[in-house]
Amino acid sequence: MDNLLKENEVLEDLELNNLKIIQNKKEFCFGMDAVLLSDFVKVRKGLKAIDLCTGTAIIPILLSAKANFKEIDAIEYNEEVLSMAKRSVFYNKLEDLIKLSHIDVREVKKYFLPSTYDVLTVNPPYMKLGNGFLNKGDSISYARHEIFLKLEELVNSISYLLKENAKLFMVYRPNRLIELISYLNKKRIEVKRLRFVHPFKDKEANLVLVEAVKGGGSFLKVEKPLIVYKEDRTYTDEILKIYGKK
Amino acid sequence: MDNLLKENEVLEDLELNNLKIIQNKKEFCFGMDAVLLSDFVKVRKGLKAIDLCTGTAIIPILLSAKANFKEIDAIEYNEEVLSMAKRSVFYNKLEDLIKLSHIDVREVKKYFLPSTYDVLTVNPPYMKLGNGFLNKGDSISYARHEIFLKLEELVNSISYLLKENAKLFMVYRPNRLIELISYLNKKRIEVKRLRFVHPFKDKEANLVLVEAVKGGGSFLKVEKPLIVYKEDRTYTDEILKIYGKK
Repeated sequence: MDNLLKENEVLEDLELNNLKIIQNKKEFCFGMDAVLLSDFVKVRKGLKAIDLCTGTAIIPILLSAKANFKEIDAIEYNEEVLSMAKRSVFYNKLEDLIKLSHIDVREVKKYFLPSTYDVLTVNPPYMKLGNGFLNKGDSISYARHEIFLKLEELVNSISYLLKENAKLFMVYRPNRLIELISYLNKKRIEVKRLRFVHPFKDKEANLVLVEAVKGGGSFLKVEKPLIVYKEDRTYTDEILKIYGKK
Repeated sequence: MDNLLKENEVLEDLELNNLKIIQNKKEFCFGMDAVLLSDFVKVRKGLKAIDLCTGTAIIPILLSAKANFKEIDAIEYNEEVLSMAKRSVFYNKLEDLIKLSHIDVREVKKYFLPSTYDVLTVNPPYMKLGNGFLNKGDSISYARHEIFLKLEELVNSISYLLKENAKLFMVYRPNRLIELISYLNKKRIEVKRLRFVHPFKDKEANLVLVEAVKGGGSFLKVEKPLIVYKEDRTYTDEILKIYGKK
């Protein structure tokens, strides 16, 4: 193993089970979306999970404390962030639980058997287009961007990896939720639970947490809204609790 | 015109433009869902609208004050409630705006030309199965009930009536939202705006307001949550405002 930290990297305390994670504040740093998704995952213990587009491995590392998986595979295609993820897993002594691999999410068929996982988590890399909201008028140019073509590819890979009755947990942008539902429906993956995340209680949602089941029936539960900030622009109690600060 | 009120009927003040509506507290009385839907409708003036399953005509009557339509057709199949609706429209002197007809929503092709309306509103009669929530375990028996077969029929009629680029406004149950989206997608009716209604801020949604566009692009906006009650079980300011009490 090289030195733990490379240039521009920092070791951040996750304030949970003494876990720490390597981040590069200039390029690769996890967002609130990953933290919220990890908290949204509710499963029984002893299952086999995979995290796609794992980035810094923030989701598997948080799940090591928040859930009780038998094993977690995690794949990432960018070698620089994958190196950070591997060093974080090593630092946290989680190598027995979390297996990181250098795999393109579109090519999972080359590396994994079909219907392998009980649980799949994914925070797709849509954020990399920029953290801001797109204007409504941007939808056409946005639709032409390659990232839009990938949603169906992503769903194809999800469908390939999930066992029958297995669960998908995903965080996504509400503005593309209808498309996501359509692609999932084509693969018989039924959305069962949604939670919308609003920056303030009187603002539209900017994230959505999605639980879906392969081969599940169609009965949706829309949970209480998750509000990030209070009116005074400090975090709500629920966010502080998710971040382990309360 | 007969006497204004029949047995068990009352004239209720809508607290909006001096409008009043006839209700039968035992059998036909409008719910909050219709009031919220009327408030959710945002359109430019001078359009031609139709309200399906209009019941007491609560939605067209409220829209006479909240929007500025050129004409509103409204259809209802139950003759008893249709009689109440007609008397309410007469009482409010809205006969020139609101045209009520005795038509089964499944048979609109017999009575209307295709692609006729700019706006369609509907509060489908799912409430008539009982106002309570269904348990998750009930979804199979619920699915066997005829009301479930009707969602696709309803969407077929909606699709038939709407012009290209025309708008649908609908209030529905979140637990069947995925199915609704699927049926709408099949007819190229794209959901563009959703607002979830939660009885309390920390409870799951029990209603959803839906705006969709025939032939629209896929870009969804999920508005701020609509909370009905404060913690002290009195109405929130927004509900009071919608009801004209604030």
